[in-house]
Amino acid sequence: MSVDEVLTARAALSRLFEPSDTVGLALVAAAGPVQALRIATGEQAAPPAVAAETAAYLSSGSGQGSALAEGLQRWAPRVADLAPGRDLDAIRRLGGELLVPEDSRWPESLRHLELGMPLCLWARGTLARGLPVLERTVAVVGSRDATGYGLSIAGDISAGLANRGYTVVSGGAYGIDAQAHRAALASAPSEETATIAVMACGADRFYPAGNDDLLRTVAARGLLLSEVPPGSAPTRWRFLQRNRIIAALSAVTVVVEARWRSGALNTAHHAAGLGREVGAVPGSVYSANSAGCHRLLRDGSAVCVTDAQEVAELAQPLGTTAADTTAVDTEQSGAAREGVGTQADARTGEPGGDGGKGGNRRAVQDGLAVEDLLLLDALPVRSGTTIDKLATVAGLSPPGVRAGLARLELEGLAVRTGADLWRRGRH
Amino acid sequence: MSVDEVLTARAALSRLFEPSDTVGLALVAAAGPVQALRIATGEQAAPPAVAAETAAYLSSGSGQGSALAEGLQRWAPRVADLAPGRDLDAIRRLGGELLVPEDSRWPESLRHLELGMPLCLWARGTLARGLPVLERTVAVVGSRDATGYGLSIAGDISAGLANRGYTVVSGGAYGIDAQAHRAALASAPSEETATIAVMACGADRFYPAGNDDLLRTVAARGLLLSEVPPGSAPTRWRFLQRNRIIAALSAVTVVVEARWRSGALNTAHHAAGLGREVGAVPGSVYSANSAGCHRLLRDGSAVCVTDAQEVAELAQPLGTTAADTTAVDTEQSGAAREGVGTQADARTGEPGGDGGKGGNRRAVQDGLAVEDLLLLDALPVRSGTTIDKLATVAGLSPPGVRAGLARLELEGLAVRTGADLWRRGRH
Repeated sequence: MSVDEVLTARAALSRLFEPSDTVGLALVAAAGPVQALRIATGEQAAPPAVAAETAAYLSSGSGQGSALAEGLQRWAPRVADLAPGRDLDAIRRLGGELLVPEDSRWPESLRHLELGMPLCLWARGTLARGLPVLERTVAVVGSRDATGYGLSIAGDISAGLANRGYTVVSGGAYGIDAQAHRAALASAPSEETATIAVMACGADRFYPAGNDDLLRTVAARGLLLSEVPPGSAPTRWRFLQRNRIIAALSAVTVVVEARWRSGALNTAHHAAGLGREVGAVPGSVYSANSAGCHRLLRDGSAVCVTDAQEVAELAQPLGTTAADTTAVDTEQSGAAREGVGTQADARTGEPGGDGGKGGNRRAVQDGLAVEDLLLLDALPVRSGTTIDKLATVAGLSPPGVRAGLARLELEGLAVRTGADLWRRGRH
Repeated sequence: MSVDEVLTARAALSRLFEPSDTVGLALVAAAGPVQALRIATGEQAAPPAVAAETAAYLSSGSGQGSALAEGLQRWAPRVADLAPGRDLDAIRRLGGELLVPEDSRWPESLRHLELGMPLCLWARGTLARGLPVLERTVAVVGSRDATGYGLSIAGDISAGLANRGYTVVSGGAYGIDAQAHRAALASAPSEETATIAVMACGADRFYPAGNDDLLRTVAARGLLLSEVPPGSAPTRWRFLQRNRIIAALSAVTVVVEARWRSGALNTAHHAAGLGREVGAVPGSVYSANSAGCHRLLRDGSAVCVTDAQEVAELAQPLGTTAADTTAVDTEQSGAAREGVGTQADARTGEPGGDGGKGGNRRAVQDGLAVEDLLLLDALPVRSGTTIDKLATVAGLSPPGVRAGLARLELEGLAVRTGADLWRRGRH
């Protein structure tokens, strides 16, 4: 069985079978692609051993015995249209090629789909290095009718990931998908596969038409992949099945914006089913475009992610750290975390405890023992007070007050104002 | 030991001990409040049995043997100031009273704090019915420097909860707390305790001053509670300890907005430690005021909640349903969920699958078998096509197409256009 035979057989089978046609895929698993094609096209009857093995692959599913017969009926109308040589020529004329599981560049991550693994991938783009490894691949997906908020965070996360050397995978659609590809293209180091678009139509088509230029660039600097042959139209079924490939190729699937019912959730469920990490970006509870993300967070299907660093942490294989990654957006997220903002100290009438007080002062106080915190509370801000008075106010013994004042003085939190009077330090 | 003796002892002890003074609380557990007061004030030496039992209560913590001696030193400076009769008079003059664990109205939920249970609660307000049961009590907390977004959702959730008969508990602070109290007051049925404010200062003080009118109303139509006696100042320590009471009183603690470091997170951690449910409201990843909420979601400490109904579901004891609750904001949240919005169908160039298509049509299609979905994809929208052509396009056998068309026709998804030609139904 030559390489060409395998390529030709898989090319033909990818036109004969719809994506995830489990009977067809079981037949290929049982007979190999070349014999499977002969059987599927009716050129050869299935030998009993092949029929039995095919049925065995399907044992947990369909009607077994009759499944192959039904498959043959289903495939028959398409046999006359098969022209794998023409399809292979078509992809090659576009500078692409057909990737098959027998190829060493075939992504191992797709094998996790088991029987649902695509027959092949029609690919355009920078295939010289093969596909990036699973650990460096992140899917960023979401609604087509994205909001400005969604586009913004999709861009930030994708750019941050590309900057850290991750390849961003998406579906080439309008909205979040397009933004993810764009941001990755803008930020990816030139030596990496910038971004991968997995299409629901043939890799010869730039679909949707409005993303023509974008997808052309993806094909030039990244990869355009499809399991259906050139010329294929994007159907609902192919969109839904395409999502499993996005999920399988990626260590993490991040849903940026999704409505309560959304194809992006379908991708997330595929990812969860494969044991991949799923992240969801939170948003306004008043935005219908975030309702799907909140649904994933609420039912525990996804981890809350708010920036590229948090996504990268999900992608890290166990036992490794993010130390080798460049920290591009730490400054922004750091600011958000520490509460260093203009609103932080407005209206902080309460003497602490209830929030919004970020910064060093608070951090120091959090580290204090209970007695010292009580003592600090009791220290007057202006004029000094006595040890005995402090003992009463703080509810501590005079020796306890003395010891505590010594500790607070070291921290600059207490100041002696002569004659053994004490006030709070202006730390 | 009379009721008055117990009230007087606990009133005095609540001034002698700072909140969560575990040595003092262990002494009370060992000796009862009346004898504990005599020992704590130095009026009586601790009998060996009491000292041993006190040490036993502390066995998992402090330095045991010396703990009581240190406690006595700590409490001594305050003994001269004790005037429990004056404090009891003060709360009664304000129409309030002192609630103690010996009282049948004492909330059982506080016993989950074990040794950390408050000595007593100085209470003002509608105490005739006692406190609401745990299952009908929800804490709504968050930053003082809230955003408009945070105030809006705090109001929606609190109003929705009050409408459903839940009592909203919060801390009486500016921002989210105040909004939660206000919305609950506006929406609570008149026969319920409208809202509960747990204060870090004495119940005689309306603190912060800017919430004076609000807290006055809370005291009139709800409850104002404090574990520290009248006249006590709100200190950092008391704020932090106050949070454990909010958490313990409530079946669910909802954090609406919180910075990366925030007192609201302290309340959430108390709640989680007690095995209570914690909810966090998501928000913009660019808002520092939501960073603490996202932190809770990310580390799995909280469940994502976006409206009152979702909070109410968390509050339901296992095995019950929310069926008996009035569904006030279902319309709003339903709209968000189903994607019935003006942005929904913009730019939906793709023939389905990727989101934003909400509504009946999509729901119907989701229910279709794979074969029927393939067939629906293959059906032309305008002019009819033949069974054989459909078989080729859909990748189905002609008998399969016939059977599928019959099913789709029933759903109105396929239409016969004479001469056995078929097109898609205008469903």
